[in-house]
Amino acid sequence: MRAARFYAAKDIRVEEIRAPQPDDSDNNDKVLVEVEWCGICGSDLNEYLLGPFAIPSPRTGAHPLTKDILPVTMGHELTGRITHIPQTLSTQTTGNGIPLRKGQAVVVDPRFFCASCNPCTQAATNCCQTIGFLGLSGGGGGLAEVVAVRPGQVYALDTGDGDDEGVREEVDLAAAALIEPLAVAWHGFKLFLSASWPRGQLDEENRPKSLDIDTNVPALIIGAGPVGVAMAFVLRAWGMKTILVSEPAAGRREVMRSTGIATAIFDPLAQQSVAQRCREVTADGDGVGVVFDCAGSQPGFQAGCEGLRFRGVYVNLAVPKTPITVPLGPFMQKEITYKSSLAYDQEDFRETVDAFLKGRFNGVENMITRRIALEDIVAKGVEELVRPNEHIKILASPKLSNLA
Amino acid sequence: MRAARFYAAKDIRVEEIRAPQPDDSDNNDKVLVEVEWCGICGSDLNEYLLGPFAIPSPRTGAHPLTKDILPVTMGHELTGRITHIPQTLSTQTTGNGIPLRKGQAVVVDPRFFCASCNPCTQAATNCCQTIGFLGLSGGGGGLAEVVAVRPGQVYALDTGDGDDEGVREEVDLAAAALIEPLAVAWHGFKLFLSASWPRGQLDEENRPKSLDIDTNVPALIIGAGPVGVAMAFVLRAWGMKTILVSEPAAGRREVMRSTGIATAIFDPLAQQSVAQRCREVTADGDGVGVVFDCAGSQPGFQAGCEGLRFRGVYVNLAVPKTPITVPLGPFMQKEITYKSSLAYDQEDFRETVDAFLKGRFNGVENMITRRIALEDIVAKGVEELVRPNEHIKILASPKLSNLA
Repeated sequence: MRAARFYAAKDIRVEEIRAPQPDDSDNNDKVLVEVEWCGICGSDLNEYLLGPFAIPSPRTGAHPLTKDILPVTMGHELTGRITHIPQTLSTQTTGNGIPLRKGQAVVVDPRFFCASCNPCTQAATNCCQTIGFLGLSGGGGGLAEVVAVRPGQVYALDTGDGDDEGVREEVDLAAAALIEPLAVAWHGFKLFLSASWPRGQLDEENRPKSLDIDTNVPALIIGAGPVGVAMAFVLRAWGMKTILVSEPAAGRREVMRSTGIATAIFDPLAQQSVAQRCREVTADGDGVGVVFDCAGSQPGFQAGCEGLRFRGVYVNLAVPKTPITVPLGPFMQKEITYKSSLAYDQEDFRETVDAFLKGRFNGVENMITRRIALEDIVAKGVEELVRPNEHIKILASPKLSNLA
Repeated sequence: MRAARFYAAKDIRVEEIRAPQPDDSDNNDKVLVEVEWCGICGSDLNEYLLGPFAIPSPRTGAHPLTKDILPVTMGHELTGRITHIPQTLSTQTTGNGIPLRKGQAVVVDPRFFCASCNPCTQAATNCCQTIGFLGLSGGGGGLAEVVAVRPGQVYALDTGDGDDEGVREEVDLAAAALIEPLAVAWHGFKLFLSASWPRGQLDEENRPKSLDIDTNVPALIIGAGPVGVAMAFVLRAWGMKTILVSEPAAGRREVMRSTGIATAIFDPLAQQSVAQRCREVTADGDGVGVVFDCAGSQPGFQAGCEGLRFRGVYVNLAVPKTPITVPLGPFMQKEITYKSSLAYDQEDFRETVDAFLKGRFNGVENMITRRIALEDIVAKGVEELVRPNEHIKILASPKLSNLA
């Protein structure tokens, strides 16, 4: 089959490799999925420019869970259809509890985790001490024709048989490839909630009965790249009423505007500061209650802290390219709470799939600014994204290659 | 009277100035306090070395609350006795609710706050948008013979009349001068509590009935300077069972050891890392649950984050001298919560006084490593502290000057 494999920085090759086979002994606990669409992620670009980072290399040794080392197939934002279910798995269900079925449309949770380390035993598999990702750490990838994955990693996108119990319609598998970045944003939102209500820190008896979200808390998103736009969709899905966005690139502001989600969109390079704008557009003039940093820049960190109200929450979802210093003044004077968000756990992924199927991300397909064939992944995908550009998300498909 | 006044960096002068008088019109809402002891604080040293920072200068203009500008009298960690109560205040009480009485021993809450800004209206007067300090912002200071302060700023140290209702014994006014730095540490501890249980973020009905502190959470203090040692006393007062301390200076480790409070004391320059030691001495090998940074150094920040367990809390109480960068790896992988602590509010100060009077800081007077006369404040106090030294706290007294 055709697959895009990472050899080194600036060296991703689309080449013919052996496809996973139903009778491979490695695959007797896995279903085979024929890939439909796979998104290119910012972490793929980092690997391409300066990697290998997360990709296991001779320097780091094989990944402890996949046992793989480069070259590895890339791509971790993928959807497709189940083409093979081993006999031994015939009674098993998907990650969202639907019986496995040949032909079933699925989105893949690409994570590998050990299930035994301290975070894993607290259900925080996103923080697994040996976390890996299909498409980065080995074990196959979505930028290929076929992947082999455990049943718990696939989430059914047609969840019913036509009655009210589930959805059995034509699913947009391109839009569904956005579920992975949406889950990243979903986890960031839940970290914000945990700053007001820590998960697992109070016993059952002491928990309040209602845990309603205060949808009146104004939120600021720093950066309208893929995670920033996904965050806007997630905030809307949670019913947040005031969604502000700061983004220096006019083209990205335009895409954000086209979603119709943002209450206001700021240019951080404009004369009036983002903090001033935040105070202006919030009812009491106190600024926002939460910032979601999807940019990872020092000016963004500073502006976000200045835009926050007293005892606001700052959630970072970005991996900054340079060291970021703490703006200590606002942190002390406003008792800001800071957390950094990494990926998503199973609950996040299941909830994000569920929200997607319920139409709570209506219009999210507008995030897809280009669709390309797998063969063109470097020239029309990765290379395009590492130049100044106005794309939000580029998807690739091996099916387009076959058609071409 | 004699007073130590700040004119410029390296220019503090002990000189004769006019004492506050009972019939000054400025003072008809204030009691007069004859100073017994006043501590030298790290912020005093910063002003001396590189100031003026907090001290109002021609560059910043007068402080909005005190209307003063340099030269200002220094000293904000002070105790003394009430010598004058204006007729109009005769029925008023101290900050801890004790009727004002001539001769009463008191500790002074040195803060000025507006009482009307957003933080002030949420009882977070420590974050007042125009916060000032007696001894830095004008309005007098503790490094003088007499200060004039509002009744709410004095806290009675003899709170009873001999019966069980209060304490009416000889109070150690030197030890009581440590209440101010203890209140700084107290607030930092309550910020940690608020990370598990946010103050004022859930309505009354939804609060859990019991809000017991988990005294089994292991704590690490970075830095055994005055605030670090005060933090150890505060943690012991709250019943915390595992108190670890990291401090590079052997002399300070020795003082910390002499208090008998620390479970273990680490040298961060030793071969074994602080994080390793934290994992070794915590029951489950997971590291500490909370870090109190009383140093403000980059290696300390890094070590503290590495020593924290999953979902641990990092509370910064230091004002670093250089920009501090976020150790993003531990923050993401462990979902660390970060907060920075500034001063204390009225609840903190009242609770700290109360804990002091109940003997919960037993032995705290060992923090005092030298007592000097006001006259010697520069040569034997400030100059001593800005050189490498093994002092924790130096106190000065105008009474010693008078005796000399």
